[in-house]
Amino acid sequence: MGPQKNTYIRISLPAVCFVWQIAMVLLFGIFIRYNEEADAHWVEHKQQHNLTDIDNDFYFRYPSFQDVHVMIFVGFGFLMTFLKRYSFGGVGFNFLIAAFGLQWALLMQGWFHSLDQDTGKIYIGIENLINADFCVAGCLIAYGALLGKVSPVQLMVVTLFGITLYAVEEYIILNLLHCRDAGGSMVIHCFGGYYGLAISWVLYRPNLHQSKHNEGSVYHSDVFAMIGTLFLWMFWPSFNSAITNHGDGQHRAVINTYIALAASVVTAVAISSMFHSKGKLDMVHIQNATLAGGVAMGTSAEFMISPYGALIVGFFMGIISTFGYVIVTPFLAKSLKLQDTCGVHNLHAVPGMLGGFIAAIVAAFASDSVYSHQGLINTFDLTGEYASRTMSTQGGYQAAGTCVAMAFGLIGGAIVGLILKLPIWGDPADDNCFDDEAYWEVRAFEFDEATGQHEVTEEA
Amino acid sequence: MGPQKNTYIRISLPAVCFVWQIAMVLLFGIFIRYNEEADAHWVEHKQQHNLTDIDNDFYFRYPSFQDVHVMIFVGFGFLMTFLKRYSFGGVGFNFLIAAFGLQWALLMQGWFHSLDQDTGKIYIGIENLINADFCVAGCLIAYGALLGKVSPVQLMVVTLFGITLYAVEEYIILNLLHCRDAGGSMVIHCFGGYYGLAISWVLYRPNLHQSKHNEGSVYHSDVFAMIGTLFLWMFWPSFNSAITNHGDGQHRAVINTYIALAASVVTAVAISSMFHSKGKLDMVHIQNATLAGGVAMGTSAEFMISPYGALIVGFFMGIISTFGYVIVTPFLAKSLKLQDTCGVHNLHAVPGMLGGFIAAIVAAFASDSVYSHQGLINTFDLTGEYASRTMSTQGGYQAAGTCVAMAFGLIGGAIVGLILKLPIWGDPADDNCFDDEAYWEVRAFEFDEATGQHEVTEEA
Amino acid sequence: MGPQKNTYIRISLPAVCFVWQIAMVLLFGIFIRYNEEADAHWVEHKQQHNLTDIDNDFYFRYPSFQDVHVMIFVGFGFLMTFLKRYSFGGVGFNFLIAAFGLQWALLMQGWFHSLDQDTGKIYIGIENLINADFCVAGCLIAYGALLGKVSPVQLMVVTLFGITLYAVEEYIILNLLHCRDAGGSMVIHCFGGYYGLAISWVLYRPNLHQSKHNEGSVYHSDVFAMIGTLFLWMFWPSFNSAITNHGDGQHRAVINTYIALAASVVTAVAISSMFHSKGKLDMVHIQNATLAGGVAMGTSAEFMISPYGALIVGFFMGIISTFGYVIVTPFLAKSLKLQDTCGVHNLHAVPGMLGGFIAAIVAAFASDSVYSHQGLINTFDLTGEYASRTMSTQGGYQAAGTCVAMAFGLIGGAIVGLILKLPIWGDPADDNCFDDEAYWEVRAFEFDEATGQHEVTEEA
Repeated sequence: MGPQKNTYIRISLPAVCFVWQIAMVLLFGIFIRYNEEADAHWVEHKQQHNLTDIDNDFYFRYPSFQDVHVMIFVGFGFLMTFLKRYSFGGVGFNFLIAAFGLQWALLMQGWFHSLDQDTGKIYIGIENLINADFCVAGCLIAYGALLGKVSPVQLMVVTLFGITLYAVEEYIILNLLHCRDAGGSMVIHCFGGYYGLAISWVLYRPNLHQSKHNEGSVYHSDVFAMIGTLFLWMFWPSFNSAITNHGDGQHRAVINTYIALAASVVTAVAISSMFHSKGKLDMVHIQNATLAGGVAMGTSAEFMISPYGALIVGFFMGIISTFGYVIVTPFLAKSLKLQDTCGVHNLHAVPGMLGGFIAAIVAAFASDSVYSHQGLINTFDLTGEYASRTMSTQGGYQAAGTCVAMAFGLIGGAIVGLILKLPIWGDPADDNCFDDEAYWEVRAFEFDEATGQHEVTEEA
Repeated sequence: MGPQKNTYIRISLPAVCFVWQIAMVLLFGIFIRYNEEADAHWVEHKQQHNLTDIDNDFYFRYPSFQDVHVMIFVGFGFLMTFLKRYSFGGVGFNFLIAAFGLQWALLMQGWFHSLDQDTGKIYIGIENLINADFCVAGCLIAYGALLGKVSPVQLMVVTLFGITLYAVEEYIILNLLHCRDAGGSMVIHCFGGYYGLAISWVLYRPNLHQSKHNEGSVYHSDVFAMIGTLFLWMFWPSFNSAITNHGDGQHRAVINTYIALAASVVTAVAISSMFHSKGKLDMVHIQNATLAGGVAMGTSAEFMISPYGALIVGFFMGIISTFGYVIVTPFLAKSLKLQDTCGVHNLHAVPGMLGGFIAAIVAAFASDSVYSHQGLINTFDLTGEYASRTMSTQGGYQAAGTCVAMAFGLIGGAIVGLILKLPIWGDPADDNCFDDEAYWEVRAFEFDEATGQHEVTEEA
Repeated sequence: MGPQKNTYIRISLPAVCFVWQIAMVLLFGIFIRYNEEADAHWVEHKQQHNLTDIDNDFYFRYPSFQDVHVMIFVGFGFLMTFLKRYSFGGVGFNFLIAAFGLQWALLMQGWFHSLDQDTGKIYIGIENLINADFCVAGCLIAYGALLGKVSPVQLMVVTLFGITLYAVEEYIILNLLHCRDAGGSMVIHCFGGYYGLAISWVLYRPNLHQSKHNEGSVYHSDVFAMIGTLFLWMFWPSFNSAITNHGDGQHRAVINTYIALAASVVTAVAISSMFHSKGKLDMVHIQNATLAGGVAMGTSAEFMISPYGALIVGFFMGIISTFGYVIVTPFLAKSLKLQDTCGVHNLHAVPGMLGGFIAAIVAAFASDSVYSHQGLINTFDLTGEYASRTMSTQGGYQAAGTCVAMAFGLIGGAIVGLILKLPIWGDPADDNCFDDEAYWEVRAFEFDEATGQHEVTEEA
C-alpha cells in the first residue's frame, strides 16, 4: 500500500450506508405510496372504471422489468468480473450501487414525474421500478470507467450525484424537450458513459502502471464476464421495450433490438479477427462490442426504423465499438490521460451518442404514410401542446436532447470528480488498484492441492 | 476415509431413486390429471364460461413461475457452490432434491388442496407447479444446514419427509388457521430453516474439525456463489408475488419485496464492514444477509405494509442477519453444538420467524380505511366462515401459524435426524466432509499448465 | 501445430462475416417488414378489428421467447464450456453461430411461412423470433458434435447450410405432412443431432488422440457447464410451449415438460451411480442426461399425454441417455469412427427420434373423448383439407416426419462434411484440438500467485 493512501473504511463506509439508508426510510415515509394499480383499493377502482385484472399495467411490463433487473445486477455485475483479482469488487460493488441507487431513484424520478400535486405524494407502480433500474444503469456504466480505482465510499458518492443528475437531465430531455428515449441511448448510455469518463479523467493516476500486474484477466474470469455479456445481450430487447407503448410499441422495440444486436456480434467478430496477426479473437471485444447495437438502438427502438434499418445500425456499431477498443482507448489513455477500465467510451458513450443522433434522423423522416396518422401521434406522443410539432422539429429536439445528456455527463462528472479528490474517501494507492484485498476479506485465490489448505492471505 | 464410515452408495442410491421414481409414476397415474385450464377441453370450457384465452391463469402466473424455478435450481444451487471443493455437491444434489421433491410435492399438496372429492383426482395447473417449487424450497433450505456432511441417500430421505411435513403444516396454517402466507416466511423459511437446524443438531459431529481444511471458499467458488445470490435476490419479488391475488396483490407484493431487498443490501454492507478491523467486506455476508429482507417480507408482501414499512423491514433484516453470521453462528456452534454450514439460522430461520410475527402485527392493524372494504376482504380472503373474523383475531392466527411452522420444523427435523443416524446411509466420515470426491468422480481441481494434462485423482 | 494445418483465419473469418452480414442487410431490405402487431399501424388495426392491446400476440409469447433466448445463448453456450481449455470457443462460437443464424433463419423461414404473395414481403412478429431461435438450436446441437475440432469459418458454413436444411425439412414436416412438432423433437433435436453426427463422421480424425490431454474438464469448467445445464432444464417448459396454441396448449405443454424433466434427473442419477464402482456420480451425465426428458417431450408436449405419461417418458429418457454416455458413445467412437465431443447422439439425436415416434403413438390414440371434439381439432389443427384426416393417419404422418428429419440430418450433414474437408477453412491440426489458443488470444490459464503476474502465453 502506498504511503499516503489508506483504504481503512471501517468508519466511513458504515456511516455513509447508515446515514443514507435512514434518509431513505424517512423520505419514503413522507413521500412514497402505492399507485392505484398496486393499492388494495384496486378491487374497487377496477369496478368503478370497468377494468379487469389483466388491464393492470403489471401484466404488460412485469416480464420486461425482471429482464431489466437481471441486466442491472447480473448483466452489469458479471461483465465487471473480468479482472483477475477484482471480481468481488466488480459484482459486489455493482450490487451495492444498484441497491442504494434504486431507492434514491424512486424518490428523484418520483418528484419529477409521479408527484401528485394535491397530496404531495409519489405514487409508484411497476413502471417506476423499471425507471429506477434504468436510472441506476447510468451509474453502473460510470462505474465501468472507475472499476478497480475507487473505494466503495466514493462509489456511494458517485451514485448519489449520478442519480440526481440523471433525474434532472431526464426531466429536461423527456419533459421539457419532449424527446422520446425508450431505451435510453441518450439519458442512460450517453449520460452515464460521459459521466464516468469525466470522473475518471479528473481522477487520473499517473502511476497506475504500478498496478499493471493486476489489470487484465485470467481464463476463468473471462468466462465469468461472458455471463454478464450474454444476459445483457439476451435481455436488451426487454430493456429497450420495457416502457414503450403497449402493443406495437413494445413489440417493435423488441424486434429492432433483437436484430441490431445480432448484426453487432458478427461485425465485432470480424473486426476483432482482422486486428490480430493470426486472426485470433479477443475476449474483450466479444464481451463488449457485441452489445453496441443494443445501446445505439435505445432511442429509435420504438420508431419505424424498419428491420433492415436496425440491422444497419447494429452492423456499424459492432465495427465502431471494436475499433474503439483496439484504437481509441489506447489513444485516449496516452494522449488524453483518460483511464477507462472497461472501455465505456466504446460501449456506452459513443454508441449512446450516435444512437441519439440516429434517432433524431429517423424521427425527422417519420411520416403519416409509414406510421399511419394515429400511429405517428401515438409513437411520438404528439398530443396537447405538442400536437402541432412537425417531425423535423422533433428530430431537432432529439438531437438537442443528446447534447444535453452529454453535457450533463461531462460537467456533472467533472464536478463529482473534484469532490472525489478529497483525501477522505479511502481510495487505494496506485500500486494497490484492481485488487480485491483492499476492500474484501480474500481467503485464497486458488485451491492449493499440495497442502490441502486454503492460504489465509489476510488477518481479519 | 474414517474407519467406520463408508461412502459406497452404488446400491442404495440407485435403489432409492428407482423405488421412489416408480412410486411417483404409479401415484401420478392414479391421481394426477390436468385442470380445466390445461386440458384440451379448455376450448369448449372457455366458450361455456364466456372466457378468452388471456383469462387463463397461465398468463397471470407463468412469468413468476419461471422466476421461482430459476431461484430453486440456479439460486439455491449456486448459492451452495461456495465451498472450495464441494461445488458439485452443492449444485448437483440441490438439483436431485428439487427434481424428486417437486413430484412428491405435487401429490402431497394435491391431496390437501386440489383433490376433487367426486372423481378422486388431483387436477393440476400452473399454480400447482409454483406451489411444488415452494414446497421444495423448504427442503433446499434445510440442505443448507447439512451441506457437505450427508450423503445423497440421506438427502432423499430428508426430502421425502420434508415435503410431507411441509404439506401438513401448510394445510394447518393456510386452511385450518386461515393464515395468509404468500411468500412463505412461515411455511417455507421458518419451517425449512428449523427443520434443517434440528437435523443438523441431531447429526452433530464432534470431530468435524478434521474436515476444516475443506470448509471455506476459494476465490472463484465465491464468485460462483454470487450467481446464486443474485438470482435469488433479483427474482424474490416474483417469489413473494407468484401466488398472490391477480391485479393489486401481485403488483404490491413485487413493490414491497423489491424495496425491502434493496435496504438489506445497504445495511448488510454496513455491518459487514463494521466488524472487520479495516472495514473490509466479507463475501459470506454479501452472499447471504443481503437476501434477508426478501425472507422477512414473505408473509406481509401482499399486505398494505406501505413502501416505507417494507424499507424498515429490509433495514433491520440486513443488520440482524449479518450480526447472525458474525456473532450467533459461532456461538451456536460452540455452545449448542449446532453445525450450520450455510448459516440458514441467520438467513431463513430467524428472518422467516420474524417475518411471520411482523405480518401478524401488520394484519392486526389492517383496516377498511387503508385497504378499502372490498380490498380488506380480498387481501385476507375474509369470506364464508371467516367473513366475521376481526383483524386482531387474524393477527393472532398469523402469530400462531408462525409457531406451528417452527414446531413442525424442530420436531420433524429431530425425528428425521434420528432416522438419519442409522448406519446405512453412506454418509462421509468426519475427515471426509465438504469433499466432492466422496460422491463425485472428480477429474482435476486445477488445470496443470506444466504437464498439460489433467490429474486423474480417482480410479473409476 | 501440425505441419499441414494452419489456423490462420485473419482473412477468411472477416471475409465470411462481412459478406454474409452485408447479404443479410440487402435481403432484409428487400424482404423483411413488421407484421401488423408490430407496425405503428396497430393503433388503427386494433380499432378496425375491435381488439385491445392485450390481444397482441406479444403478451402471449414474449416471456416464453425470452426463456428460449436464454436457452440458446446461455444454455447451449455454457453447456459447452465444460472442456478445460475450450470454454471461450464453447460459449463464444455458440454466440457467433446463433447471432448469424437467427438472421438467416428469419429469411429462410419467412420465405416458407410468412411470405405475403401480394407484396412479396415477409412480415415478422414475436413468433418469427421464436422460430428463428428454434432454427438456430438445430445448428448449435450440431456444434456439440464438432466442439473443439473445427474453425469458426467452418462453423459459419455449418450454420448457413444447417439453417437452410432446417427450413426445408420443417416445411416438409409441418406443412406438407401437416405434422405437429411444437417443441421440435423431430425438426430441431433429431435433425440437429444427426446433422452434427454426420458432419463429425465425415470429418473423422484418426489421430485425435494427440489432443487427448485437452479433452476433458477441470473442476471449475464443470461448474460453468452446470450453468448451461440448469438454464436449459429450467426453461425447457418455455421451449416446448413457446409456439403452441394460446390457452390450454401453452399451459399443458409446460406441465408435461416440467414433469418429464423431473423424472429424467432422478433416473439419470440412478444410472450414473450404478455404473461407477463405488456409486459415484459423473458430471457428464448430470450435465446432459437430465435434459433428455425435455428433448423427448418436444413433439407430444401439447398432446394429452397425461401427467403420468410425461413422467414415464422422462423416466426412460434419463435411463437411455445415461446408458448412451456410458456405453454407446465409446462404442460409436471405436466401431463407427464417430467422434462426438458432447455426446449429442445421447442427448439430442436418439431422444429426439424417440420423441418423434412417441408422439406418433400418442397422436394415433388421440380421441374426442379425451380431447373433446373441438379440443382435438384445435390441438392437431384438423381444419381445411385436413378436417377428415383420422388420428391413426395423423400418427403415421408423425412417424414419417421423424424419418424425414433424420434423413435430412444424415444426408445434409454428409454433404456439408465433404464441403468442410476442403483445405481452406483453417481448422486445427489433430494435436491442436480442444484448445482455445488456436482461435483466441488467451492471456493466462491461471493466476500465478508467486509472481503476481499473468503469464502472457501469446504474442498479439
